[in-house]
Amino acid sequence: MTKTGKINVAILGATGSVGQKFIQLLEGHPYFQVTEVAASDRSAGKKYSEAVNWFMTTPIPKDVANLTVKACAPGLESKLLFSALDANVAGEIEEEFAKKGYFVVSNSKNHRMDKDVPLLIPEVNPDHLELVKCQKFGGGAIVTNPNCSTIGLVLALKPLADNFGLDTVNVVTMQALSGAGYPGVSSLDSIDNVIPFIGGEEAKLETEPLKILGQLKNGFIEDTNIKISAQTNRVAVLDGHTESVQVNLKTKPTKEEIIEVWKNFKSEPQALDLPFAPINPIYYFHEDKYPQPRLHRNLDKGMATSVGRLRDCNIFDYKFTVLSHNTVRGAAGGAILCAELMKAKGYLD
Amino acid sequence: MTKTGKINVAILGATGSVGQKFIQLLEGHPYFQVTEVAASDRSAGKKYSEAVNWFMTTPIPKDVANLTVKACAPGLESKLLFSALDANVAGEIEEEFAKKGYFVVSNSKNHRMDKDVPLLIPEVNPDHLELVKCQKFGGGAIVTNPNCSTIGLVLALKPLADNFGLDTVNVVTMQALSGAGYPGVSSLDSIDNVIPFIGGEEAKLETEPLKILGQLKNGFIEDTNIKISAQTNRVAVLDGHTESVQVNLKTKPTKEEIIEVWKNFKSEPQALDLPFAPINPIYYFHEDKYPQPRLHRNLDKGMATSVGRLRDCNIFDYKFTVLSHNTVRGAAGGAILCAELMKAKGYLD
Amino acid sequence: MTKTGKINVAILGATGSVGQKFIQLLEGHPYFQVTEVAASDRSAGKKYSEAVNWFMTTPIPKDVANLTVKACAPGLESKLLFSALDANVAGEIEEEFAKKGYFVVSNSKNHRMDKDVPLLIPEVNPDHLELVKCQKFGGGAIVTNPNCSTIGLVLALKPLADNFGLDTVNVVTMQALSGAGYPGVSSLDSIDNVIPFIGGEEAKLETEPLKILGQLKNGFIEDTNIKISAQTNRVAVLDGHTESVQVNLKTKPTKEEIIEVWKNFKSEPQALDLPFAPINPIYYFHEDKYPQPRLHRNLDKGMATSVGRLRDCNIFDYKFTVLSHNTVRGAAGGAILCAELMKAKGYLD
Amino acid sequence: MTKTGKINVAILGATGSVGQKFIQLLEGHPYFQVTEVAASDRSAGKKYSEAVNWFMTTPIPKDVANLTVKACAPGLESKLLFSALDANVAGEIEEEFAKKGYFVVSNSKNHRMDKDVPLLIPEVNPDHLELVKCQKFGGGAIVTNPNCSTIGLVLALKPLADNFGLDTVNVVTMQALSGAGYPGVSSLDSIDNVIPFIGGEEAKLETEPLKILGQLKNGFIEDTNIKISAQTNRVAVLDGHTESVQVNLKTKPTKEEIIEVWKNFKSEPQALDLPFAPINPIYYFHEDKYPQPRLHRNLDKGMATSVGRLRDCNIFDYKFTVLSHNTVRGAAGGAILCAELMKAKGYLD
Repeated sequence: MTKTGKINVAILGATGSVGQKFIQLLEGHPYFQVTEVAASDRSAGKKYSEAVNWFMTTPIPKDVANLTVKACAPGLESKLLFSALDANVAGEIEEEFAKKGYFVVSNSKNHRMDKDVPLLIPEVNPDHLELVKCQKFGGGAIVTNPNCSTIGLVLALKPLADNFGLDTVNVVTMQALSGAGYPGVSSLDSIDNVIPFIGGEEAKLETEPLKILGQLKNGFIEDTNIKISAQTNRVAVLDGHTESVQVNLKTKPTKEEIIEVWKNFKSEPQALDLPFAPINPIYYFHEDKYPQPRLHRNLDKGMATSVGRLRDCNIFDYKFTVLSHNTVRGAAGGAILCAELMKAKGYLD
Repeated sequence: MTKTGKINVAILGATGSVGQKFIQLLEGHPYFQVTEVAASDRSAGKKYSEAVNWFMTTPIPKDVANLTVKACAPGLESKLLFSALDANVAGEIEEEFAKKGYFVVSNSKNHRMDKDVPLLIPEVNPDHLELVKCQKFGGGAIVTNPNCSTIGLVLALKPLADNFGLDTVNVVTMQALSGAGYPGVSSLDSIDNVIPFIGGEEAKLETEPLKILGQLKNGFIEDTNIKISAQTNRVAVLDGHTESVQVNLKTKPTKEEIIEVWKNFKSEPQALDLPFAPINPIYYFHEDKYPQPRLHRNLDKGMATSVGRLRDCNIFDYKFTVLSHNTVRGAAGGAILCAELMKAKGYLD
Repeated sequence: MTKTGKINVAILGATGSVGQKFIQLLEGHPYFQVTEVAASDRSAGKKYSEAVNWFMTTPIPKDVANLTVKACAPGLESKLLFSALDANVAGEIEEEFAKKGYFVVSNSKNHRMDKDVPLLIPEVNPDHLELVKCQKFGGGAIVTNPNCSTIGLVLALKPLADNFGLDTVNVVTMQALSGAGYPGVSSLDSIDNVIPFIGGEEAKLETEPLKILGQLKNGFIEDTNIKISAQTNRVAVLDGHTESVQVNLKTKPTKEEIIEVWKNFKSEPQALDLPFAPINPIYYFHEDKYPQPRLHRNLDKGMATSVGRLRDCNIFDYKFTVLSHNTVRGAAGGAILCAELMKAKGYLD
Repeated sequence: MTKTGKINVAILGATGSVGQKFIQLLEGHPYFQVTEVAASDRSAGKKYSEAVNWFMTTPIPKDVANLTVKACAPGLESKLLFSALDANVAGEIEEEFAKKGYFVVSNSKNHRMDKDVPLLIPEVNPDHLELVKCQKFGGGAIVTNPNCSTIGLVLALKPLADNFGLDTVNVVTMQALSGAGYPGVSSLDSIDNVIPFIGGEEAKLETEPLKILGQLKNGFIEDTNIKISAQTNRVAVLDGHTESVQVNLKTKPTKEEIIEVWKNFKSEPQALDLPFAPINPIYYFHEDKYPQPRLHRNLDKGMATSVGRLRDCNIFDYKFTVLSHNTVRGAAGGAILCAELMKAKGYLD
């Protein structure tokens, strides 16, 4: 606890693009205060403002700018850690922290599919948080945020699954460049171009939703039984993943019924009035040309998922377009919402 | 016939983007010589170089620059016309010309689905050219080029249909801005953005292939019996439509067998050695990250279709990526190849 | 006055891009409430949300969405009008309103150089507002906002002029696409391109600063006596004009002295604590690679001017880079600040 | 000599972006044949097609694809080397080769300002090639190609210097991303952005022209006596540097006289009919909106410099816009033209 009554948090991987986004989004947060930043040995010991190549569009929060970067090793004073670590080191470091009693909310992929680790979208599977109780870390815990292209998709699918039963999901993505981190994709590969491949992304999109939409039974997640096929493309967009989606449902509703369940969809974060919870998790557009990443990625602070163009399909029951901010809802913002849920439900006490 | 032994041709809609592309591509053509340019009343009477806002990346061919723009009405001296007219006027004008005995090779959509009008991809359905004999224009004829997003797709599908039987096609496009003409899409709508809607495009993609892959029987095309679903998106690419495609085949081949039939695919334009025929209509890439519009749209003068990422699919038999230059193979270049086929087969005599 | 104690305002040209920006920025404004929207006859009579092709990145404010669009002719109930009219109609319409007693704060170029019309940057020449008293409109008034590329430049020049005396200004701009309105520049002209020409822009940049930096004497502005040369280019940036600037000063200061006067620059809007006044009108960056439009255009709600790279020059005394948000500080936001100044100084009573 | 009578050449730094450009441009060259490719130890020993991340828009020439990459150390069989080495290693390696008797034509900056090394633009200072005779390499030689932003500028200045006397040059550049190599600039830094800084670039632009336009006297170059100031910016353009230029001339000509000397400018490469020599080194556009990088960078195979917008200036005598292809004329193509000149003048015998 800080003097202001807020919970101290540390950012692991604080100098990278997701780390910066955590720091930007947590400025002025009502629950959490960034009091420690940790990064690789190259940065450790430096003043944060000097260690970082800050490229957010708002200035570095002043109290963070002056922090000294620490090493990513137990010894941090904050008990709550947001991990923006690279996948090649995140696995071990996060586990090490958890074993020492830290709560790690991670945006990295390493522990997502671990049996006892919640893969959490607070509006979709808040009950999965209970998995934490099965973890063998002796007080510490790891909670993970799904892949950036998974989150928007599953938010749009959840009301369909609940109301009509989900059978098959076909998705083709047009993903933003920020998803590749910084420097990430070369400008020579992105301007006037599409790259029809993102390493490992299709597998994540085809497996993560099965766990997220699965049922918690006796301390285990039973994957949901749906077929998913994903094709992932990188396009010249800075932020915001657009997805062309097709679904088969167990019971075929009318278009109006689908739009109705999307518009009415609210869940635990809304009930708990969590700070980062969007008022409506799903925003449906009736205009043919919407949603568009540049216009709609920032809806409700970047936490709302936009959906549009619901229409009949010659092959599946329906097709539609989904848009979600990949570094806010799909990364740092989503992880913050997970931590807010943990706090609200007493997991951080 | 010109003094050089070439066939005189006129371009209808010569000042628009497709009209300019015709003029650019026909420079130095071994069969055809642009000797007349026709456009709207606003341009008629002016010198072509003054009437046009030329934005091709090579200079206006000198002999065309000095032509006086004519009206789009019978009275043209050339018997062969390439039509790049706007759809809102093309229907009537093209018909009027055909009735007066002209051969119209059109890139406009108006007559594409007419029962007696060939919708021609010379490598795919060269035999459909015979439909012309059923036309009631008294010597004149209309031949059409399919939609820009259809051509690349159907070229990639044709060897599959021939060798394994085609059952279902699911396609999501990421289409180039040049497909919308000039000025077309505003820069404010395209930079850092995706537009998930292109008016009328999905219907074209879902119907044109049925006719193109259909069989000519007793003077009529019997549509092929396949299911197609299309989702079309506009992305920040100048030229080159990229398509994420999934197929079900009647007999499921191995990946190697599919790649084999793509690589070996040659057809009548190759046999006839037509000037605009690509050496190989389909170029298969084994690298995961290919094809890409900026790198590969100009393969074989922009007339080859690039294919890559053939892989298994959880829902369909296979999925893969197709790329094709939308204003060359998908518009002016494709129409020129149609005219070359007509010449080679004696339709222009 | 509204029931909330705010001043009712009408937006002229409310459906265009600047009109939309006014509406977006005025949402929740402490002084002003948009209660009327007016546009061309084509839109008049329609509900605003149906008349407009809204492309701001936040939703249409609800109370404005439901307004009925009115004609741009006297009869409006609001006495304060923000004009976002096209230059080809603005001249007459604005004058007509002023003659009927309205206060017109205009972003259009038509009356900018009129002898009795203030060309106002509230931090630079707030005293010029007095010119209004010389206007012969019988109670009404016209106040104008300078050109978008002028404002950022003159804000950066003002402390130099005041402290060291300004002699010569050489400027080359790299201007954003939004400056051309909507649809404005075609995507085919902007992606992977620079357009080295913007009609009329260089003349504005070479003349407007002379008036703005001029002295009000006996009811007239005496233009300042400096030489300006401008070259204007359009680049592939959505918002934010970047300018490479060189100056000769009457007394050559050190770099540190210049940075000092920039950092310390505050003026009447800051003293009056006007709602749209940036805390610091000028933000100086010490990093070589800054300022950049994407990172810094939104500093202080888009109202701050960013400056960087101050360095010696082989030809002039100094050179540096200026960045300013062209549709906020350079258009709607700048005009709103003018109206705020008018209110604070009793001109709207 | 190859069997085909061509001169064998090796490319140093063959896997980088400039190295690839050399290989692309030399395909089918009438004088030179790429028979060796050399690169860093990481690539040495591999097949070229496997060592390289080829991103040119035409396929790897077949005979080069199969070459085995060699180390960048003497032992190469070709006597003529094109160096596309990184500046951090080029200095020593090039010198080592020259000492062993090789002819090195380099695009790297390291030896450009060496007193006995020609900094060559074949149309501008072909006589400087004689400097080679002063080199102390015992048979070998180093010839350098200027910086990419220098070449287009100096080509446009040369006829002015010759005809009217050059006094002062002020230049602001808008440079293409390919100038930074590959991967070079991150897409997150380039889309919707301008970077007002390119490390070391302004110094090159302010010094290289002095040497190039200097006079060879008694085996030394006497720098020309002009004042140059440069401001360099990176914009979202793939290829083609655009420059806003201002000049003071010793004798002020009319606009028509300047356009005349630009249009008539021809030099030794044109007289010798060298393969890469553009027919006209300078192409003047009368349309206000030209030249533009996307439209005109490839004029005359990318070797012509485009100029436009010549107009009066309030500060200098004249201002105008220059455009030149930075990786063709400004790098690999320019270096090839240097080598062609060397061959034509007997320097490679």
